Amino acid sequence: MREKCAVLGIRSTQNVFDSIYYGLYSLQHRGQESAGLAVYNNNEIDVHKDMGLVSSVFENVFLEGKVGIGHVRYSTQGDTRIENSQPITIGYGGGSLAIAHNGHLVNGVELKEKLKKKGAVFTTDTDTEVIAHLIAQEHMKTGDFVNGVGKAMKKMRGSYSLTLLKDDRIIAVRDPNGFRPLVYGRNGNQEVVASESCALDSLGVPFVRDVKAGEILVLGDKIESIRKTRDKASVCMFEYVYFARADSVIDGISVYKVRKNLGENLYRAAPVKADLVTAVPDSGITAAIGYARASGIPYGESLIKNRYLGRTFIMPRQEERERGVRIKLNPIKSEIEGKRIILIDDSIVRGTTIKKLIDQLRNAGALEVHVRISCPPILNPCFYGIDMQTSDEFIARKFRVDEIRKEIGADSLVYNNIEDLVDAIGLPRERMCMACLNGEYPLEEEQKKLVS
Amino acid sequence: MREKCAVLGIRSTQNVFDSIYYGLYSLQHRGQESAGLAVYNNNEIDVHKDMGLVSSVFENVFLEGKVGIGHVRYSTQGDTRIENSQPITIGYGGGSLAIAHNGHLVNGVELKEKLKKKGAVFTTDTDTEVIAHLIAQEHMKTGDFVNGVGKAMKKMRGSYSLTLLKDDRIIAVRDPNGFRPLVYGRNGNQEVVASESCALDSLGVPFVRDVKAGEILVLGDKIESIRKTRDKASVCMFEYVYFARADSVIDGISVYKVRKNLGENLYRAAPVKADLVTAVPDSGITAAIGYARASGIPYGESLIKNRYLGRTFIMPRQEERERGVRIKLNPIKSEIEGKRIILIDDSIVRGTTIKKLIDQLRNAGALEVHVRISCPPILNPCFYGIDMQTSDEFIARKFRVDEIRKEIGADSLVYNNIEDLVDAIGLPRERMCMACLNGEYPLEEEQKKLVS
Amino acid sequence: MREKCAVLGIRSTQNVFDSIYYGLYSLQHRGQESAGLAVYNNNEIDVHKDMGLVSSVFENVFLEGKVGIGHVRYSTQGDTRIENSQPITIGYGGGSLAIAHNGHLVNGVELKEKLKKKGAVFTTDTDTEVIAHLIAQEHMKTGDFVNGVGKAMKKMRGSYSLTLLKDDRIIAVRDPNGFRPLVYGRNGNQEVVASESCALDSLGVPFVRDVKAGEILVLGDKIESIRKTRDKASVCMFEYVYFARADSVIDGISVYKVRKNLGENLYRAAPVKADLVTAVPDSGITAAIGYARASGIPYGESLIKNRYLGRTFIMPRQEERERGVRIKLNPIKSEIEGKRIILIDDSIVRGTTIKKLIDQLRNAGALEVHVRISCPPILNPCFYGIDMQTSDEFIARKFRVDEIRKEIGADSLVYNNIEDLVDAIGLPRERMCMACLNGEYPLEEEQKKLVS
Amino acid sequence: MREKCAVLGIRSTQNVFDSIYYGLYSLQHRGQESAGLAVYNNNEIDVHKDMGLVSSVFENVFLEGKVGIGHVRYSTQGDTRIENSQPITIGYGGGSLAIAHNGHLVNGVELKEKLKKKGAVFTTDTDTEVIAHLIAQEHMKTGDFVNGVGKAMKKMRGSYSLTLLKDDRIIAVRDPNGFRPLVYGRNGNQEVVASESCALDSLGVPFVRDVKAGEILVLGDKIESIRKTRDKASVCMFEYVYFARADSVIDGISVYKVRKNLGENLYRAAPVKADLVTAVPDSGITAAIGYARASGIPYGESLIKNRYLGRTFIMPRQEERERGVRIKLNPIKSEIEGKRIILIDDSIVRGTTIKKLIDQLRNAGALEVHVRISCPPILNPCFYGIDMQTSDEFIARKFRVDEIRKEIGADSLVYNNIEDLVDAIGLPRERMCMACLNGEYPLEEEQKKLVS
Repeated sequence: MREKCAVLGIRSTQNVFDSIYYGLYSLQHRGQESAGLAVYNNNEIDVHKDMGLVSSVFENVFLEGKVGIGHVRYSTQGDTRIENSQPITIGYGGGSLAIAHNGHLVNGVELKEKLKKKGAVFTTDTDTEVIAHLIAQEHMKTGDFVNGVGKAMKKMRGSYSLTLLKDDRIIAVRDPNGFRPLVYGRNGNQEVVASESCALDSLGVPFVRDVKAGEILVLGDKIESIRKTRDKASVCMFEYVYFARADSVIDGISVYKVRKNLGENLYRAAPVKADLVTAVPDSGITAAIGYARASGIPYGESLIKNRYLGRTFIMPRQEERERGVRIKLNPIKSEIEGKRIILIDDSIVRGTTIKKLIDQLRNAGALEVHVRISCPPILNPCFYGIDMQTSDEFIARKFRVDEIRKEIGADSLVYNNIEDLVDAIGLPRERMCMACLNGEYPLEEEQKKLVS
Repeated sequence: MREKCAVLGIRSTQNVFDSIYYGLYSLQHRGQESAGLAVYNNNEIDVHKDMGLVSSVFENVFLEGKVGIGHVRYSTQGDTRIENSQPITIGYGGGSLAIAHNGHLVNGVELKEKLKKKGAVFTTDTDTEVIAHLIAQEHMKTGDFVNGVGKAMKKMRGSYSLTLLKDDRIIAVRDPNGFRPLVYGRNGNQEVVASESCALDSLGVPFVRDVKAGEILVLGDKIESIRKTRDKASVCMFEYVYFARADSVIDGISVYKVRKNLGENLYRAAPVKADLVTAVPDSGITAAIGYARASGIPYGESLIKNRYLGRTFIMPRQEERERGVRIKLNPIKSEIEGKRIILIDDSIVRGTTIKKLIDQLRNAGALEVHVRISCPPILNPCFYGIDMQTSDEFIARKFRVDEIRKEIGADSLVYNNIEDLVDAIGLPRERMCMACLNGEYPLEEEQKKLVS
Repeated sequence: MREKCAVLGIRSTQNVFDSIYYGLYSLQHRGQESAGLAVYNNNEIDVHKDMGLVSSVFENVFLEGKVGIGHVRYSTQGDTRIENSQPITIGYGGGSLAIAHNGHLVNGVELKEKLKKKGAVFTTDTDTEVIAHLIAQEHMKTGDFVNGVGKAMKKMRGSYSLTLLKDDRIIAVRDPNGFRPLVYGRNGNQEVVASESCALDSLGVPFVRDVKAGEILVLGDKIESIRKTRDKASVCMFEYVYFARADSVIDGISVYKVRKNLGENLYRAAPVKADLVTAVPDSGITAAIGYARASGIPYGESLIKNRYLGRTFIMPRQEERERGVRIKLNPIKSEIEGKRIILIDDSIVRGTTIKKLIDQLRNAGALEVHVRISCPPILNPCFYGIDMQTSDEFIARKFRVDEIRKEIGADSLVYNNIEDLVDAIGLPRERMCMACLNGEYPLEEEQKKLVS
Repeated sequence: MREKCAVLGIRSTQNVFDSIYYGLYSLQHRGQESAGLAVYNNNEIDVHKDMGLVSSVFENVFLEGKVGIGHVRYSTQGDTRIENSQPITIGYGGGSLAIAHNGHLVNGVELKEKLKKKGAVFTTDTDTEVIAHLIAQEHMKTGDFVNGVGKAMKKMRGSYSLTLLKDDRIIAVRDPNGFRPLVYGRNGNQEVVASESCALDSLGVPFVRDVKAGEILVLGDKIESIRKTRDKASVCMFEYVYFARADSVIDGISVYKVRKNLGENLYRAAPVKADLVTAVPDSGITAAIGYARASGIPYGESLIKNRYLGRTFIMPRQEERERGVRIKLNPIKSEIEGKRIILIDDSIVRGTTIKKLIDQLRNAGALEVHVRISCPPILNPCFYGIDMQTSDEFIARKFRVDEIRKEIGADSLVYNNIEDLVDAIGLPRERMCMACLNGEYPLEEEQKKLVS
């Protein structure tokens, strides 16, 4: 499971290149495929973007400008195209515009077809270009850019945290459901919007507040906040469970704390006697720490992760796939041998990796392996920006929990249930999107209720 | 002076990747900045393009498909952007389209503004994207792609030799003036359109005929030729004088022969006693051979050109610019010493290089240096696809011929006049564009006469 | 502090390229500057080596051969030269030889000067080339390669774990003190020697035993073990404390266990009331886990490490160095606020980083910050293969512990003492090198006692 | 046929990096595989070398130093190793030394074996390293570097033009036969030795004289010339015929003039009626110009060469090799059709290319094709630095001239004979090496006569 992207926008009294560089670097966990930035300078927008990590894309590069936006994009095998990298810049009747987008439009294809029928021409496969068209259109209709953004929002259904660069202003936009995070910070020199608060921290810029669901926040000579939609926030629970960096705070909730709570709840849900609480690194570590605290069972590392898997690392050929897990994660025999182990991870998608890890633990002498999973079983696809393989591959769709346990070879297997998840996050249940767990997609009906 | 680009299109019974690769390679002299190709396969268009020479852009690349187009783009210092490389691919109401363009629209900016006013959104700075928009629009209006191309042509003023990839067809288009060359060839396996006939030769595909000025040539399951405009051909004389490869044949005229004729005419225009006819390599060589034949004065090489100037070669810093010419061209003393020399080149733009070469020849012991220039003095900017620096820099605008002679330090200086140029090419005068020489731009009035 | 390199050698019934690739990858933590391998094939040695990580050095590379050695080298700023990368291959009177080396010769310069005086010629700056010369010389004198290696060992003083490729044999050598680790493993198909046992694990090859201090282990058609020196093992304690991967086992001792013990001993040495045990990631994590277990104080993460710092990441300019720490490590406010914190790391060299981290913790609301350090104060330089900056920069040479505490701004500061370190490792004190702590360099006198 | 390398050495009052860069660039025709330079600075030698053209190897590189040497190496397919690139730097009892070499030692293998037997260790496959060892050895024996160079020369048999960097001096060495060129030039600021005079020209440094056969020329605070051997010069005739750049002057003879003379002699040897004299570009052009002058038959271009064949250009697959020639060279029909053609090239090795070109000319309408070859038939391998394929492949060893004519499909075929070649060059016959033509290798007996 991979999320699509992070966005950033900075308006400063000085050149913003360095700040965008370091800011994007702190958001790199949200996308390693490509990186880019656009700055406004001398009435023009300059862009630099390329495939690769932030550190290599901007090697030997410098763009002048005091206002700019940035983007990182997730990594996939296969057909990744430089054309799809962001920010996207367009020229239209209202001038120039650069746009960076995190999320996914549910009605992107539909909007694109409508726009095409009216004569629109697209050069990329991205939702982002669709959004750019909508904004351009509405800007030209209304004659006011920010107004146009608001009108465009009413046509867009789905998730979008956007940073727009229009002349010397940054316009930050978060969809009415606030599926994806977006935060705002400021110090004496600069104003920053970013996908996660860890970017503010890395820049030494104090957090001010989250951009609100449905809000248009304009960073210009003065700051304006516009909300044209009724707030029907439904933030993605998986940001807390897995995607966001543990040091980020989303909508007032510490990601780290949520993960620790999830571990504690896992203990309370089904206590089991054991000698060691351990995690699948890095995704299960914080929950394991929480579990250990609640249970009093000591926390330890049992699997060491190789940290040097580069972009071009060649995984072993098909016939020897099991080697793959061994190369990435290696058990520590001395810590495992003769112990009853609780192994914690954030989620199970297809179950193939956890099965091999359990095997490794048993080979290293584990007496028992009890698996605990922070996230309730994932049953449904996400339409709001998370790239899950076809839901057909979800092991939880094919098997009941006890069958999964057998399949992966665990002595016991316990997931948090939805109540425990809600409790761990601490937001009201109705303010979260948990469609992948319970099938209740917030947009089908909610969208109609948007204030017009 | 640099021309913009070459185009290519191939429809074959086999994969076209190799043929496009070798074909573009033979057109590399028309553009060294970027290269790209698009192929149609499984109802989709796949593209690969990048900055660099054909040989490096397609290293370790292969695209599957039996129909495809290609493009090379000229090299400039400074702001070259991957976004501007071609072919450009678009999605619109009529499906997908890839387009490659050689030329320049006179009304490109105007058309773009009109399109923007109607809501169009552009992602590049190229005329090519404007053309794509026009074609998309007209296709959607008329419901027929080829018809749409014809309608679009009526809005476009300027030079354009295009190859379009639409489904499994190649559509070749040459503007009503036929400013830029475009040829068609065929053998049992493949049909090819290309900017120059040398591409056909390199593929071993026999030349059939030039695509005609104003013609739309459709390479599909059958071949169709459509002409919606009255032919008012005015082919660019500079293709013969400098741009095209000497082994190409444009509109039935051998480029090599024209250059040789230009040399012969230079002799006849102003015979002078001398010991050696020599050329600025490579641009003046063929004319020098012609001059030598006509005059009976022996031809020889006096300046040796370094052939290894790569993309990243760093020219000497500003303060020592004269070193630049010395590194690129070195005189052969033994051939020069004590001789009266006729030095031939295709044209003089600013006069700085020829001045240094004359200096080098004198330092090497030349007794006299008589300069002969194939092309009459260039006085006006080109609007049809040749990238000339501002006409303010044309030495012929600032000085009369004898003043130029003094400025560059020659013993005598003779240009061909326009009659001699017309004679050397052998096309009727009215069928050539010589606007840069005489200011008679073919498009101002001609455009109106296009059949509607 | 950086260690120099890892070595690997594999003899197999099949091609060893893949195995060397994955094996080196698992040893990447010992060196990220360059990587290389040499294989024996058709009576020749083929080499491939380059600057960069394993994954990039061997991209699109394959070398044929069933016997081979590999090497990774540590990363420094500044004068790193491709010439110094390994394996080094030489031709000499006894044929060809490839050599990979981890360690440092105390008498390398002296030996080099002696060899030079006798006419030797060197092409690199490495000790490894000196060793190659000695072995070549002794091989030629004695007429037997392995014998020659033994003779050469008597001249070499310092640390060296070597893998040699001589014809179709691998010769593994560990210096008489066994400063650096070296292990041997085998399965039905292949025999492997490697710097750390984690490489065996990644290859699925069972560990057999450590190569012994002073041992020459020959992997050929049969396996031979030769020991020409009396064993005076003094393994580097810092391998356990910091360098080796936590999942490795060195000389029978689990690295993970040692680190956990160090944490436990830190607790016992000076218990303090606190709310959270936390670590400087990644170096202090295992000790912190041990401390937490011993103390009953909960373990948690308080600083999140950015995992994407690439080779080309540009650290902020001089004037804003504090940003550097912020970009690499970010505190989790929710976990820190209002708490008394125990912060654990493996060692303090100059004290600049820990000072900034304590600052970050206080800014995030920590009430108290108690620093605990696994390794006793480092006072002396290492001559046996660890690249410490000049000992002048060691904070522990300039200040007493309480002064250091003030300097870094901690509420309390406790190091393990040497007894606790010895206890944590569990090897007899005299079998460990702790010269950097106590100044007792094992080689000055010991070397003389080597059996002749 | 490819020659090995060019050398360069510069001693200046300023930094030499730029001058070495531009100098090597002008010698690039002698080697495109790798490039490198070494400079002396602060009592140390710094080196930079890599695979690739001068322009790419030194991109973003700068080395400080007022004295330095450079090297370019020829390009082969297959096993080219960065280790074999030059300059080679060594450390030995006499300090540091950098060395660049053009040529080939006849007794290189023998010397290497002798040195190995005495304990020498080699890290490359190059003669150059052998020479470095010899010089190091003799320097240490005699105690004087230049003396040592002289002693070393007496052991070396074969061709070598060397530039040595020893402390702040450049030592230029040319073997007693002077097989390969080496020139010396000077202006107020810098002293330069280079493989060809064109490098002096490109630097604007006046030519002073050739380094003499057997001379050691020391560029230090004063200039010294040492000759320890009797001059038995036998310069390689093929430098004039093919290798050197046409604008170079070797041993007082203009390369351009020789080639023109060769063309004239070809005419005189066997006049034939024809309409056009033409060349295989670029190797036959100057001779063709000479032929045209002598015969009065007009010179013209009939085959256009594609100038953009890059390092990574992929030639067509095996099955369609004829495409290869077509892509590189394309005939100009208009110039060829209906004409009797004289086609001139410098030499025929295997005959496969010329056969295809004759074919192309006939297909383009040539009535007759008369082939004329500057160089007499090549029958024997070169041991002095030219990389000819095994002499088994020489067409002239398998067939008599008339058979070759039939094989390649020419109407007539005439080579210059050895007398004509001697006459064209103008040096006494005994002062040239023509072993590849007549089997008279200059070294077998000559070497013994060296003054001791």
